[in-house]
Amino acid sequence: MYLHVYTGEGKGKTTAALGLAIRALGSGKKVHMLQFIKAMPYGELNILGDLPGFSYELLGRDCFIEKKPDREDSIRAQRGLKKAEECLVAQSYDLLILDEVHIALYYGLIELPKLIAILEKRKNTEVICTGRYAPRQLMEIADLVTEMREIKHYYEKGIYAREGIEF
Amino acid sequence: MYLHVYTGEGKGKTTAALGLAIRALGSGKKVHMLQFIKAMPYGELNILGDLPGFSYELLGRDCFIEKKPDREDSIRAQRGLKKAEECLVAQSYDLLILDEVHIALYYGLIELPKLIAILEKRKNTEVICTGRYAPRQLMEIADLVTEMREIKHYYEKGIYAREGIEF
Repeated sequence: MYLHVYTGEGKGKTTAALGLAIRALGSGKKVHMLQFIKAMPYGELNILGDLPGFSYELLGRDCFIEKKPDREDSIRAQRGLKKAEECLVAQSYDLLILDEVHIALYYGLIELPKLIAILEKRKNTEVICTGRYAPRQLMEIADLVTEMREIKHYYEKGIYAREGIEF
Repeated sequence: MYLHVYTGEGKGKTTAALGLAIRALGSGKKVHMLQFIKAMPYGELNILGDLPGFSYELLGRDCFIEKKPDREDSIRAQRGLKKAEECLVAQSYDLLILDEVHIALYYGLIELPKLIAILEKRKNTEVICTGRYAPRQLMEIADLVTEMREIKHYYEKGIYAREGIEF
C-alpha cells in the first residue's frame, strides 16, 4: 500500500499520524506505531494504548535532541527497523507508523538504504514516516509527502512545551 | 489560551487536530469539535465519540466542494459559530476544534470579523482552526500557524479517497 511522509519544521507531524491512526481504527483497521525517538512522555499513548486494534512500541530513550546520541540509541533504533521489517513481511497491520524515523536517519542511527529496502516490502500495509529532515530519496519513493511548514510558532514568544498540547 | 491554525493544500490538517485532541484527552483535558463542513463520513468519529472527555457536533451537510453552498449551509455554519461562542464564553472545554472553519469562511457562510471577535473571547480554551485558505487576518491573530504543504500526493496518480485513510 502507500507510503506517507510527514516532514518539515512545523507542528503537526506526529499528531497527523495519530489522527490517521484514529481514522483507520474507526474503519476497523489494525494499527501499530514504532516510536524511534522518545522526545517526551506523550499523553496520547494513555488513550491510544487502550483502543482495540492499536499497539505501539517505544524504542527510544529520553530526548537526545540536545545531546549526542550514543551506541545504545543506535541499537534501539536498529531494533525498531528490524521490527518494522517483521511487521511488513508478516503483514501484521493495516497501518504502520514509524514515528520520528527521519530523526533516527538524520542522527545516523539507522541507514537509509536499509530503511528503503524494508519499506519496499510493505505490500498491503500502509506506512507513515514522520519527523523533520526527511531525506530526498525517501520522499522520492513515497506516494504522499506533506511538509508541515512553520509559519508562526508561539515558542518564539518564549512559551514552552505544555502537557496535553505539545506532548 | 492559544489559537492554532492548520492550513494549506496538503494532507494532515484535520488529522493533526485529531491527534492533538487525543493528546489532550490523554492529559485529562476536555475536548469539543465543531465540524463546519462534512466532507465525508469520518471513520475517526466512531472511535472518538466513545472516548470520555470528547464530544463533537456535525454542522455541515454533505460535501459541497463540488457544488455551490446554499442558504441552509449558511444557517448551519452560523449555528456553529454561535455554538463556538457559547463554548468559549462558558469555558466549557480545554480544547475546541473548529474543523474546516476556513472553508466556511472561504465560501462566505460566516464572516471573518465575527469569527475573530468570538475567538478573542477564548480565555483559557485552546482553539484549533483547520481547513485550506486560512485568511491572512486569522493567521495574524493566531499564536501558531502550520501550513501543510503538499509536496506529493497520490491523487495525482489517479488514486481516490479510501475509507480509513482519507475519511
